[in-house]
Amino acid sequence: MTSDAASNSTPRAPADGGSVVISVDAMGGDRGPTAVVAGMAESADKNPEIRFIVHGDEAQLDRLIKRRKVLAGRCDIRHAPGVVAMTDKPSQVARKGADTSMWAAIESVRTAEAGAAVSCGNTGALMALSMLRLRKLPGVNRPAIACLWPSRNPQGFNIMLDVGADIRADAPDLLQYALMGSSYARNGLDLELPRVGLLNVGTEEHKGRAEMKLANDLIAAAAEAGNFQYVGFVEGGDLPGSQVDVIVTDGFTGNIALKTGEGTAKLVGEFMREAFANSIMSKFAALLAMTSLKRLQKRIDPRRVNGGIFLGLNGTVVKSHGSADATGVSAAIKLAFQLAKSGFQDRLAARVAQGNAVSAGTDVATESGAIS
Amino acid sequence: MTSDAASNSTPRAPADGGSVVISVDAMGGDRGPTAVVAGMAESADKNPEIRFIVHGDEAQLDRLIKRRKVLAGRCDIRHAPGVVAMTDKPSQVARKGADTSMWAAIESVRTAEAGAAVSCGNTGALMALSMLRLRKLPGVNRPAIACLWPSRNPQGFNIMLDVGADIRADAPDLLQYALMGSSYARNGLDLELPRVGLLNVGTEEHKGRAEMKLANDLIAAAAEAGNFQYVGFVEGGDLPGSQVDVIVTDGFTGNIALKTGEGTAKLVGEFMREAFANSIMSKFAALLAMTSLKRLQKRIDPRRVNGGIFLGLNGTVVKSHGSADATGVSAAIKLAFQLAKSGFQDRLAARVAQGNAVSAGTDVATESGAIS
Repeated sequence: MTSDAASNSTPRAPADGGSVVISVDAMGGDRGPTAVVAGMAESADKNPEIRFIVHGDEAQLDRLIKRRKVLAGRCDIRHAPGVVAMTDKPSQVARKGADTSMWAAIESVRTAEAGAAVSCGNTGALMALSMLRLRKLPGVNRPAIACLWPSRNPQGFNIMLDVGADIRADAPDLLQYALMGSSYARNGLDLELPRVGLLNVGTEEHKGRAEMKLANDLIAAAAEAGNFQYVGFVEGGDLPGSQVDVIVTDGFTGNIALKTGEGTAKLVGEFMREAFANSIMSKFAALLAMTSLKRLQKRIDPRRVNGGIFLGLNGTVVKSHGSADATGVSAAIKLAFQLAKSGFQDRLAARVAQGNAVSAGTDVATESGAIS
Repeated sequence: MTSDAASNSTPRAPADGGSVVISVDAMGGDRGPTAVVAGMAESADKNPEIRFIVHGDEAQLDRLIKRRKVLAGRCDIRHAPGVVAMTDKPSQVARKGADTSMWAAIESVRTAEAGAAVSCGNTGALMALSMLRLRKLPGVNRPAIACLWPSRNPQGFNIMLDVGADIRADAPDLLQYALMGSSYARNGLDLELPRVGLLNVGTEEHKGRAEMKLANDLIAAAAEAGNFQYVGFVEGGDLPGSQVDVIVTDGFTGNIALKTGEGTAKLVGEFMREAFANSIMSKFAALLAMTSLKRLQKRIDPRRVNGGIFLGLNGTVVKSHGSADATGVSAAIKLAFQLAKSGFQDRLAARVAQGNAVSAGTDVATESGAIS
């Protein structure tokens, strides 16, 4: 019921396998529109179904896009004179940013011309504009940013949220993160019954702050109707592990865990390069092991997991790393494409509505099989 | 003045280069007394100044110690019939644990027979007993656990605290962590003017929770008198970086960051082993690069940084990983030895007293040069 009502408001892939439209903010990233257009070309090449609405400086974009044969006839360029800088304050952008490519990119999702938006720009500004223009889903108190985390699980990644949309989260927010994260896991990682864990400083039930115990009870009670398995408290070491698929935490903790993990992986990678550069023998060994080392690099390459997704809004927005190159932008676009095509937004809205109904005591659990 | 008064209460290395006594809880670890005694032998072998008071099952310890020639005449075995299990609740151990090896190990520090205690046991119980028996330093609200973190800095490690003594910390607690952490950096890492940073979700001054801004102001104001350099907010990615030596955070966030970092390093290590096991060519390459790979492994080996130190008590307690092997136990003992020998405990007490005086508006800054 909720699902049907919502599906009218979001563009979906036509049943005949037609195109999926992604709205792209081409101006926000550290590397400018060249990297963004290169990333668009990379994903267009891999995916015949994809089309773009591209926002930014028209003359520049026209020139860059004309150079890419694979993009011919697949881009709708929309001129936006303003650019959101990395240093701009979110509140200022929300007040004065209506002429920017970021604003326009979100607008294409709001008007349902595009199935999802992608931006490499300023995270705070992108969240502020997304909340301002798309508005929160009914019943969502704090939207969240979800990221993918390399893991030992068969799917290769775990999902963690919130990684920085909001610096705090109460127990009911954490419950919503569990519902939204498991919906994302079903649609983004094809997991039928995602395993959800709540990040804490120990796995025993008595551990952690009072709001953690309350959240633990709320999430456990919602698991069956929410179509996920709740594994209870998990620790930092479980983020890359195989015991859980979705890790729920507040945005302060999640952001610090994300950056600690990235920093540690980078340090180990640097130490490895130094180790192999150490002697002629080890340089020769590195040459021999080239294929293996490249495979390793690919497995831990942060560009492959590029794309934080904003959850809890009326529309899908994917935040790419500011420093993303063509490969990174392409990964973020692929994620946006996959979510737009699967009708994720409608399913998420239905899932959140159901969660609210359950919290409010209304029995809609009998319908749970129909929503993913 | 404070320094002189305090120095009477703590055993120090005699001026003639005599022995330093470490109190060891031999029973608590996952691997039992065999690994602990092996670790004692390893550090005794490297360090002629070290002597031990060893707590646990007398018959078992006597047998194990007699097998190690290097330990002959250097161990004082004290029988303790009780063992604290990893699953024991801290509150129970505090009530009923007086016959345990952990309790006795702390007692040797309290009575000033030993300069520091080392245990591989249950962290929560060890902290509870340490607080109960050693008591908090005057003016310390929440003690902290500080850990070493592999980094790009010349000293090879950064210090992070609190990593799990308490799940919360107010702004004045974070100030004390800054004072205690920089004192540890001076005595444990030989840094004259440690750089201190406060862990947050961004480096801009407006970022983070309200208590972070207050702590930011407090720590900045205390830097000169506290003999450290304050670099302001740092992010998760700075933990293994070279911009800061001491990272201050609450125990909830610190514990999750620590375990996330450990888990990520472990994952990358596993991926690396899998990459090299992939083909005959890469196996051959691994053989050639053996020396380099071993050097790398040593650099990221968590056993080398084994030893969380409890700060803010009347005595030095080092917590070793529960799963520590001989190398890990030896690293923890080395840390305890270094701190006991440097008279760290007195200096820390003086530093905290000074911080309290500064907070209270008393001017003791003229003496700051004398305390490290």
